[in-house]
Amino acid sequence: MQVILEVDQSKGSTLQQQVFQQIRGHILEGRLRSGDPVPASRELSQQLGVSRNTVVIAYDRLLSEGYLESKASVGTFVSSALPEKAMNTTSQPIALLPDETTTSVNVLAEEPKVNHSVVSPNKGASQSDYWVGRSDPKTFPTKEWRRILDLKVRYANTQISQYSDPQGVLAFRQAISDHLGPARGVSAKPEEIVCTNGSQGALALIARAFSKRFKTLVHEDPCYSGAISVFGNSGYKLLGVPVDNDGLVVERLPKTRNALIYVTPSHQYPTGVTLSLKRRFELLEWAEKTDSVILEDDYNGDFRYEGAPLTALHGLDRRGSVIYIGTFSKSFGPSLRLGYLACERQLAATLGRWQGILSNGLPWLEQAAMAEFVSNGGFRRHLRRIRTIYMDRRNVLMDALHSAFPNAELHGLRGGMHISARLPDVDVKAAQSALSNLGIGVYRVQDCGAYCSRSLKGFDDVLIFGYAAVGENEIERTVSALADFAEGRLR
Amino acid sequence: MQVILEVDQSKGSTLQQQVFQQIRGHILEGRLRSGDPVPASRELSQQLGVSRNTVVIAYDRLLSEGYLESKASVGTFVSSALPEKAMNTTSQPIALLPDETTTSVNVLAEEPKVNHSVVSPNKGASQSDYWVGRSDPKTFPTKEWRRILDLKVRYANTQISQYSDPQGVLAFRQAISDHLGPARGVSAKPEEIVCTNGSQGALALIARAFSKRFKTLVHEDPCYSGAISVFGNSGYKLLGVPVDNDGLVVERLPKTRNALIYVTPSHQYPTGVTLSLKRRFELLEWAEKTDSVILEDDYNGDFRYEGAPLTALHGLDRRGSVIYIGTFSKSFGPSLRLGYLACERQLAATLGRWQGILSNGLPWLEQAAMAEFVSNGGFRRHLRRIRTIYMDRRNVLMDALHSAFPNAELHGLRGGMHISARLPDVDVKAAQSALSNLGIGVYRVQDCGAYCSRSLKGFDDVLIFGYAAVGENEIERTVSALADFAEGRLR
Repeated sequence: MQVILEVDQSKGSTLQQQVFQQIRGHILEGRLRSGDPVPASRELSQQLGVSRNTVVIAYDRLLSEGYLESKASVGTFVSSALPEKAMNTTSQPIALLPDETTTSVNVLAEEPKVNHSVVSPNKGASQSDYWVGRSDPKTFPTKEWRRILDLKVRYANTQISQYSDPQGVLAFRQAISDHLGPARGVSAKPEEIVCTNGSQGALALIARAFSKRFKTLVHEDPCYSGAISVFGNSGYKLLGVPVDNDGLVVERLPKTRNALIYVTPSHQYPTGVTLSLKRRFELLEWAEKTDSVILEDDYNGDFRYEGAPLTALHGLDRRGSVIYIGTFSKSFGPSLRLGYLACERQLAATLGRWQGILSNGLPWLEQAAMAEFVSNGGFRRHLRRIRTIYMDRRNVLMDALHSAFPNAELHGLRGGMHISARLPDVDVKAAQSALSNLGIGVYRVQDCGAYCSRSLKGFDDVLIFGYAAVGENEIERTVSALADFAEGRLR
Repeated sequence: MQVILEVDQSKGSTLQQQVFQQIRGHILEGRLRSGDPVPASRELSQQLGVSRNTVVIAYDRLLSEGYLESKASVGTFVSSALPEKAMNTTSQPIALLPDETTTSVNVLAEEPKVNHSVVSPNKGASQSDYWVGRSDPKTFPTKEWRRILDLKVRYANTQISQYSDPQGVLAFRQAISDHLGPARGVSAKPEEIVCTNGSQGALALIARAFSKRFKTLVHEDPCYSGAISVFGNSGYKLLGVPVDNDGLVVERLPKTRNALIYVTPSHQYPTGVTLSLKRRFELLEWAEKTDSVILEDDYNGDFRYEGAPLTALHGLDRRGSVIYIGTFSKSFGPSLRLGYLACERQLAATLGRWQGILSNGLPWLEQAAMAEFVSNGGFRRHLRRIRTIYMDRRNVLMDALHSAFPNAELHGLRGGMHISARLPDVDVKAAQSALSNLGIGVYRVQDCGAYCSRSLKGFDDVLIFGYAAVGENEIERTVSALADFAEGRLR
């Protein structure tokens, strides 16, 4: 008998692979059937003009995988144990070589209902990109971080080859605990902390663990789109509450009982306003009255330029009903995916167990390295250094905006990495597109990674500037271009 | 007026923090009420025996946080804007200092119904621990890994200070694609790959994205407990199917339509058996007939000691209905949390979007470093090196068991990092406890991180040995202790 095979020296795969794959293909596609004999190896090698060894190795693999069977002193045959039916029900070819394509049945998963993106639409394209949440790569403590990583891997011993605690590496939780007390008035012991894959990981963990207990997420409007995407895709009903210059308008809170409420008190996202102390107490009172739990996202808590920071809600709370969420994404870099949450001990243990189920925990190295960086004082020095740089940039932006737009209303100046600027009488959408032609990316509330409800009004003259990664000269160029636009000199 | 304050030089917090916290405490607990005057700073400093500056700084913070207000030439008072009610509705003290405890309302999240642990119960305690899934830390390529990490951080440029693609760093997906073709017969382009937080992260992502389309998870019995915990906690109905020496008993598959089916064909977890080629085709046929999707967990696919590996189900599939799951946890170390899945392109994109929602993606550094390690050939060399070491250990274990227990039935020898050994007439539970006294941790199917249904039978004389991290002498000591036990010389 003869099987049609073609081998080609110049192909990427070896000759024996080609023989193996083509015979397998004949079997799978039903051209060779159970019981059919295949040529003797000597015969096939002559037919193809390849060495006999090539055929022997290919046959050996076909035998070992069960495609062929060998009967002593009779010959080699297509295996009788193969389920005929599976192999010829379709005339479609099978993907045998990396370049052939499979014919796909529609294996479609549920599409997320609400998507969100933390990546700037102008990533790499704009010279001056004010996308919120970007830190300046030039401020990254590369040398110190390399030293610590190297140290950790060098002396890792068994740490790399085993799983670590899904609640988070203990030394890292200790370091967070030590940092949070003095910096944010948040008192949390290591066992009250869960390390997470950024703030986003914390929100996902909470959404998962509370999905049976709470049906509603109350949120600021506008607010961080990442929270909306997590809770909106986890079956929570979303209820937006407006924001004014003192933060969340507490008197507009719904009558709903048993809700999670997501807030950004220290630097509202995206408007930058701070929740007043009075409203902090009212919010805590509302949570107590309605049996609700507060998620306090303190994403910018490490950046304060003037005045003492207001104590976090978590520090004012007397009921253990505030879950504090922090991150190293802003202060150090989002690509590390280091965030954490602080809450009552028993809840923290439960969330740790959920994290074990959902991922077997986080990578060890980043946690161990950051623990070292925080506890050796490097992180505090780093914060001090970048606070100065970012404050200088804020000052330049603030002064330039004030002088070009005397009636501008700026928010978020006291801390954080971005501000919002209300520019009365400026068509900010047109300004955005005019500046884009100059390689400058500025954003409206509606397109800076924020979620805005359909009913949201009053933000049509507001621009958001994430200034931390933009140099001072570029900031001046930006504001002067904006002034040119406002005065009709730029279109 | 006089407020009762006590400051203590020897306390951990500074004097000004103590003054701040105690006055705030008096206000929050209602002992000082809106409009009450507080002592002048000079007066209070004398009363406490501290410098006036200390009091001035504490007052300044209380003013800036809105607890106090200052009326020119009259004095300083507790703020009138504080919501009285929030502050005295409870007599419970507030956590002001890190050592005080909060009284917690029961903020209880849902407890996972099925937990699982990947951490050995004998972690650190046993000299010879055969817990499955541990690689030998001595085989870790520390020097090369340090070099690559350092290189990546040094030239990271903007990578650390920005988010990366939630589907996975492209270079890493390319490297996985290049590795999978020749190594596993899996043809997947980078856009068909999603990088995940280990295999566990892949399972969680799939459970989330398919929860509306599929209601049932069919699984091997016994099987990896991590799969059961993810799907069992995500609302899937679980249906176990028995396993024999040829893997999943395909004729026992349920009649259910529209299911996910989780299998470990190359090295069944925990029994170590390989799914025969015949059954592979039958399984694919079943999936086609029932509109089901196969999750192929190839956790040990990189370790093969004899014979060519059977082509992965993903490589045999003609319908795009197999999701292949791989991991670097076994070959490199679980603490890196590097896993991946390969599937049809559109599905991969959807899963990438879900990963963005659930975590904003994975840490960049491990992905970038592993991409380099795979593409510079280091990973292949590393695999070759550890395969030799692990195979030597397997040989020692196999020979020792065969000679001590001539009628033992061993499975999982052809690859992987663990084997199962059926030792007829040995009370393996008693053996386990006897060996434990010698610092030797061996495991039964029931307690090696595997899920076993209540109806599971036939595994009462089976021990599981994860031998990869145990030295050859220790392996010989283990088997000889086991023989001593079987012959009544050890209790």
